[in-house]
Amino acid sequence: MKKSALQQARATYQPKLPVVLTGGAVEAIAGQPTESVANQAEIKELFPNTYGLPELHFEKKQNSTRSANLEAKPINVGVILSGGQAPGGHNVISGLFDGIKKIHRDSRLYGFLMGPGGFVDHKYIELTADYIDQYRNTGGFDIIGSGRTKLETKEQFDKGLEILRELNISALVIIGGDDSNTNAAILAEYYKAINAGVQVIGCPKTIDGDLKNNVIETSFGFDTATKVYSEVIGNIQRDCNSAKKYWHFIKLMGRSASHIALECALQCQPNVCIISEEVEEKNMTLSEVVDSIADVVARRAANGDNYGIVLIPEGLIEFIPAVKALIAELNDLLAAKAADFATVEADKQREWVINQLSEANAATYESLPLGVARQLTLDRDPHGNVQVSLIETEKLLSEMVAKRLDQMKADGKYNGKFAAQHHFFGYEGRCADPSNFDADYCYGLGYTAANLINAGVTGYMASLRNLTLPSVQWIPGGIPVTMMMNMERRHGAMKPVIQKALVKLDAAPFKKFASKREEWAMNTCYTYPGPIQYFGPAEVCDQPSQTLKLENQGL
Amino acid sequence: MKKSALQQARATYQPKLPVVLTGGAVEAIAGQPTESVANQAEIKELFPNTYGLPELHFEKKQNSTRSANLEAKPINVGVILSGGQAPGGHNVISGLFDGIKKIHRDSRLYGFLMGPGGFVDHKYIELTADYIDQYRNTGGFDIIGSGRTKLETKEQFDKGLEILRELNISALVIIGGDDSNTNAAILAEYYKAINAGVQVIGCPKTIDGDLKNNVIETSFGFDTATKVYSEVIGNIQRDCNSAKKYWHFIKLMGRSASHIALECALQCQPNVCIISEEVEEKNMTLSEVVDSIADVVARRAANGDNYGIVLIPEGLIEFIPAVKALIAELNDLLAAKAADFATVEADKQREWVINQLSEANAATYESLPLGVARQLTLDRDPHGNVQVSLIETEKLLSEMVAKRLDQMKADGKYNGKFAAQHHFFGYEGRCADPSNFDADYCYGLGYTAANLINAGVTGYMASLRNLTLPSVQWIPGGIPVTMMMNMERRHGAMKPVIQKALVKLDAAPFKKFASKREEWAMNTCYTYPGPIQYFGPAEVCDQPSQTLKLENQGL
Repeated sequence: MKKSALQQARATYQPKLPVVLTGGAVEAIAGQPTESVANQAEIKELFPNTYGLPELHFEKKQNSTRSANLEAKPINVGVILSGGQAPGGHNVISGLFDGIKKIHRDSRLYGFLMGPGGFVDHKYIELTADYIDQYRNTGGFDIIGSGRTKLETKEQFDKGLEILRELNISALVIIGGDDSNTNAAILAEYYKAINAGVQVIGCPKTIDGDLKNNVIETSFGFDTATKVYSEVIGNIQRDCNSAKKYWHFIKLMGRSASHIALECALQCQPNVCIISEEVEEKNMTLSEVVDSIADVVARRAANGDNYGIVLIPEGLIEFIPAVKALIAELNDLLAAKAADFATVEADKQREWVINQLSEANAATYESLPLGVARQLTLDRDPHGNVQVSLIETEKLLSEMVAKRLDQMKADGKYNGKFAAQHHFFGYEGRCADPSNFDADYCYGLGYTAANLINAGVTGYMASLRNLTLPSVQWIPGGIPVTMMMNMERRHGAMKPVIQKALVKLDAAPFKKFASKREEWAMNTCYTYPGPIQYFGPAEVCDQPSQTLKLENQGL
Repeated sequence: MKKSALQQARATYQPKLPVVLTGGAVEAIAGQPTESVANQAEIKELFPNTYGLPELHFEKKQNSTRSANLEAKPINVGVILSGGQAPGGHNVISGLFDGIKKIHRDSRLYGFLMGPGGFVDHKYIELTADYIDQYRNTGGFDIIGSGRTKLETKEQFDKGLEILRELNISALVIIGGDDSNTNAAILAEYYKAINAGVQVIGCPKTIDGDLKNNVIETSFGFDTATKVYSEVIGNIQRDCNSAKKYWHFIKLMGRSASHIALECALQCQPNVCIISEEVEEKNMTLSEVVDSIADVVARRAANGDNYGIVLIPEGLIEFIPAVKALIAELNDLLAAKAADFATVEADKQREWVINQLSEANAATYESLPLGVARQLTLDRDPHGNVQVSLIETEKLLSEMVAKRLDQMKADGKYNGKFAAQHHFFGYEGRCADPSNFDADYCYGLGYTAANLINAGVTGYMASLRNLTLPSVQWIPGGIPVTMMMNMERRHGAMKPVIQKALVKLDAAPFKKFASKREEWAMNTCYTYPGPIQYFGPAEVCDQPSQTLKLENQGL
């Protein structure tokens, strides 16, 4: 691997650990027993061995002496990267490595390759100091690779246990999003139930920002990814404001929540940002979303400003109740009448679909641009479902806005020029080198996971709190995963899952955005955050996300 | 304007001027008379007053005393930003401002708004110290805006002269690409011919990197833009190498040359990078380009690597001789038979076009994916021409590669998985905050332009040379624009134009790439440059482009 100049300089960065974790031994202080956020009885029944555990936080051990460490034994630990990449994963692993080595220098760390699949299939490498040193403070999950295999069956758990026994591994750390951590909790419960002697610890990862709650302040990667997106959005805004001739429609990754779009809006101050959760809450139709954008375009045009920026969360289309209903009916219809549909001639398909749909859904279908409507019926995944992620929502919206503006022009309500450019940002941010925040946060999470292992617990997620303070003041601890769970319907059955965090319309980040958006729509208030800086003044390099600041401090 | 933390910190950066320009007065040292690069007789005839001027470079004035400056008079200067944005434009203007203020504190700078159009229409602002201070070291052209109006008629020149006279402006600085500088030279000649008493100085701007030659080492903006693209390409590469499941097809802005793609390839070491100039030189067909990519995909798949990165220059399609010929014939055909074509039913258009085309072009047309073929006949600009910039070359290529791989699979020559993601980067880089290189280069160009004005010359382009040395050692001077010109056919007539710099297949940058590409194709040698840094160690912050290093030093 030829390292870039930045990688070489950045390799020497020493993440700032919470002061509690530096120096001598620590002890885990237990709080009160916990309850799950909902469905307590069901969750308790499903997790008889790991339900109700107390929250933990670490404190420096009183009267700690060096001899305490002499009593420690080596620990062998396995680690898995699960799901989509997020900046900082390599630092979780290096923090975990340093943490278990501090506990005992003969501790060993094994990495399972290409995600949970490597665990089940016994594909792994030992992570040595030299190897890990190449990956400190870098982005990506390429240190051991990641994958999307779901760990959920007894067979997988038992198969994995074989390799854990073979390598004398007594703890497994799973770095993943809400689903992966749910499965980590199920695995912890299972290993506890069968007395396997293996602890399972989770780490909160996802750029989407939807794995958080009142005990987990943020997931790692969100900070860096949104800073990369804000960099390029800012650059496009500056171009837009220089050329003054385009409307840029920018879609941002994140299907299940709009935290990324909201954070980027708070950082960049675009003219329009759609928040899916608001669209759903207000029961808006696609046409109303289009009208809301066309309205801003027309009002800016009246001021002579025929340019602007629109941010769109990737998941929008699935949050629009009418489109959601249409997709659901289409999925059922095309599954039930697949054979019939296959016999319909290409140029009759549209009519056929409209005739089969219920009146409301047929009307929604007819309102869609032809290309998108065609995509909804033709591009289907192996299970016969519409592939929503393939829909180019940014083009769909700009096309519909253009059409709406044509009508408004005919009605004398608009007299401007409208030309659009389209962008989609996702892969650009998932593997960026972690910001100082994520570098510190991830390293601290890994180090905390080592201490949770040393404390002998299972079914916990590593946590660091007080994240808007300087990182040396963060408070390390552990949160029982069952505490974050409720019951939700998945694939037709009720399952215990970690409750997903959507954008809350009554919380500070959205309220700040809502209070500013009219000003941002009409005046050009663009802010240009620029690229992530690693070496400059603290006010440039060490700032947490706006979302976190607003949530923690209301600032 | 709410400034980001980075903007605030960066505002205090003081660009490093060549040492020659610091301290006391300078004098312009003239070299030998020059000749144009070709068509000397024609160019000389067209530029009787500005042909054959000597190259200039500045040296510190011997025996310079403070009293020398007391003799100086205030200068009023106008400045125009022309064409697409490029990082550093604001620094050219601030360097020009500081330069003319140093010559005399009562000098004034006027900015014409939204490009050459503002000059013709008398729209301008005075650029004061307070106003300029807000824009130092920032990206964008929003300080006065830019535009694409071409300055080429006597009426425009005369109209512009009115406002120059009204504001007592004796020199005009035009910041633009090859066409804008060509027009600057024509304007310089005209004002000289009519004894208008107005000097015209050009500055070499374009992210595309195609305005350079043996006297102008690079255009400004290329360094920053390619660093931004390399940042996001590197991030995508790291994602690609972590997930190991996608081929990413990444198109990069720049229609007329492949310098951007080549520079990004040298920085990032992707598996494939197409260089349009090579495709043209080798007279490759589209199908051969597709085969060359499919070959790498198949050979990587044989090693178990079903992932990779392909860089594509935006202009590729127009460099493929067969496609170029097809587009030319289509333009003629659809212009000549527009009425006939309009009567052809939608599902008969393809057949109609194929029957009308010559055999070779019909074959090329038939080989294109349906969507692209349709685009070539339907999406036409107001002049009836194919809108090549709308063609999504990245999707066209990946679709054709997928088809080719299907054939190879059927023939038993390929046994892998192929899934593609698509990206297009352009607007992301044009308005980024300038790198230290571009911040220094642009400020120095502006400062040099002020000195050229003070030296009383016209028809020159500001130049800084020895750009791979530290910026204090750069050599400021001026190059007669006519020296870079030759005669080319434009819109049916021979015109004097600055010769465009294409990628040279026998020069060091391409040769380095060509010597490495087989290794990069098969082994995964990705390099991750990361974001532009402004505050760190010099080896991270102060590096010129690979292209420049290779051209100047063969490194």
